[in-house]
Amino acid sequence: MCRTCGCDEATHTHAHPHARRITLETDLLAKNDRIAHALRDRLEHDGILALNLIGAPGAGKTTLLEHTIRALGTLPMAVIEGDQATDNDAQRISATGCPVMQVNTGPGCHLDAGMIEHGLAHLKPRARSLLFIENVGNLVCPALFDLGERAKVVVMSITEGDDKPLKYPHVFRAASALVLTKVDLAPHVEVDPARCIEHARRINPNLTVFPVASKKGLGMAEWVGWVRGALETAS
Amino acid sequence: MCRTCGCDEATHTHAHPHARRITLETDLLAKNDRIAHALRDRLEHDGILALNLIGAPGAGKTTLLEHTIRALGTLPMAVIEGDQATDNDAQRISATGCPVMQVNTGPGCHLDAGMIEHGLAHLKPRARSLLFIENVGNLVCPALFDLGERAKVVVMSITEGDDKPLKYPHVFRAASALVLTKVDLAPHVEVDPARCIEHARRINPNLTVFPVASKKGLGMAEWVGWVRGALETAS
Repeated sequence: MCRTCGCDEATHTHAHPHARRITLETDLLAKNDRIAHALRDRLEHDGILALNLIGAPGAGKTTLLEHTIRALGTLPMAVIEGDQATDNDAQRISATGCPVMQVNTGPGCHLDAGMIEHGLAHLKPRARSLLFIENVGNLVCPALFDLGERAKVVVMSITEGDDKPLKYPHVFRAASALVLTKVDLAPHVEVDPARCIEHARRINPNLTVFPVASKKGLGMAEWVGWVRGALETAS
Repeated sequence: MCRTCGCDEATHTHAHPHARRITLETDLLAKNDRIAHALRDRLEHDGILALNLIGAPGAGKTTLLEHTIRALGTLPMAVIEGDQATDNDAQRISATGCPVMQVNTGPGCHLDAGMIEHGLAHLKPRARSLLFIENVGNLVCPALFDLGERAKVVVMSITEGDDKPLKYPHVFRAASALVLTKVDLAPHVEVDPARCIEHARRINPNLTVFPVASKKGLGMAEWVGWVRGALETAS
């Protein structure tokens, strides 16, 4: 029995209205996955490390990337930026000197593998390089779409609250690493980073976690070290 | 020509891979809209004011609701809470004494009109009452789904950055009001609320804007007054 309203349903997940959607999306996902698998083979063959950064709008993905790119210095890198509209983020990345391509999804809520294929055709990243993919600001839908990346990295701001891994578990389950941003703001929002990390590890015990404050440089050495290490094993 | 990468496409919106998705979603949206239109007729007939709160995870929707419900005091109210998982938010609302129903969408990224219909069957709100719908934490997809509400209210935290209305314009265009939360944190994140509001109004000049800090009570009287006024015109 549902404890909230006392009806006879075990939960209020509405399987019926979603059933048709799920069938349709299976087709789309299968098509996406075919492209993604081919992309993954190609990227691995060329020793290109692709990281798919997923997080809510304002999680701090672009700021994290700006500081990561500067810290990585002369390493060969490229960025694909996803947003519904504007090329603001591509302009910010471009200012670091890193090659970047903006993908605008219009009403679309995520990047798909076809967009990455198109991006690679334009960016032409060299062998043994890094490809950062900044997904559309959305903690929900991008978790479902394989982009051929080596790893998904969930980027979450401490200002979002410590309960988010429990409430939006899919992306935390799909990710290899969590970058917990803006940890310097924790006292102002009365959120405990340790509790947030505990919730994330409850969903995914294998998650590697990096608490950072990108603008202040806090925790960045560990995160950048992880990226460097991942690139070495990819090349 | 694309100014980012120099290719011949005007923009990097990928119409082709999305075309099939859009066709499929048109069917789903048409079905959703039929249910939503019937719901709207019914809610208007009963003088029930339904507000659909949309915002990213951690925008502060539940905190805003807790304080709004307490400020509204004895007004008849009910809440439908949307999340991928957990009934954390329903428990928080329940603690205020307000009737609430939690809808878990699993991998789903938004509430749809069928879920609201089901929620109403359980909550049985009385005539001339308020119905708050807290959508799944997602600034993107819920903008597309009519829930039969009187108005969409976009809830955005100042910590998300002033550029979000420009980068995620659809929800700002669809909304009647913007509640800009956590404005007390603006100095800590170096974001200017006035600039954020200017961006939101550039997308939607008719947006009524409420800068608030819910926990501190800042700006809450104006927002709560707007809700009261809307209920009076609905009844």
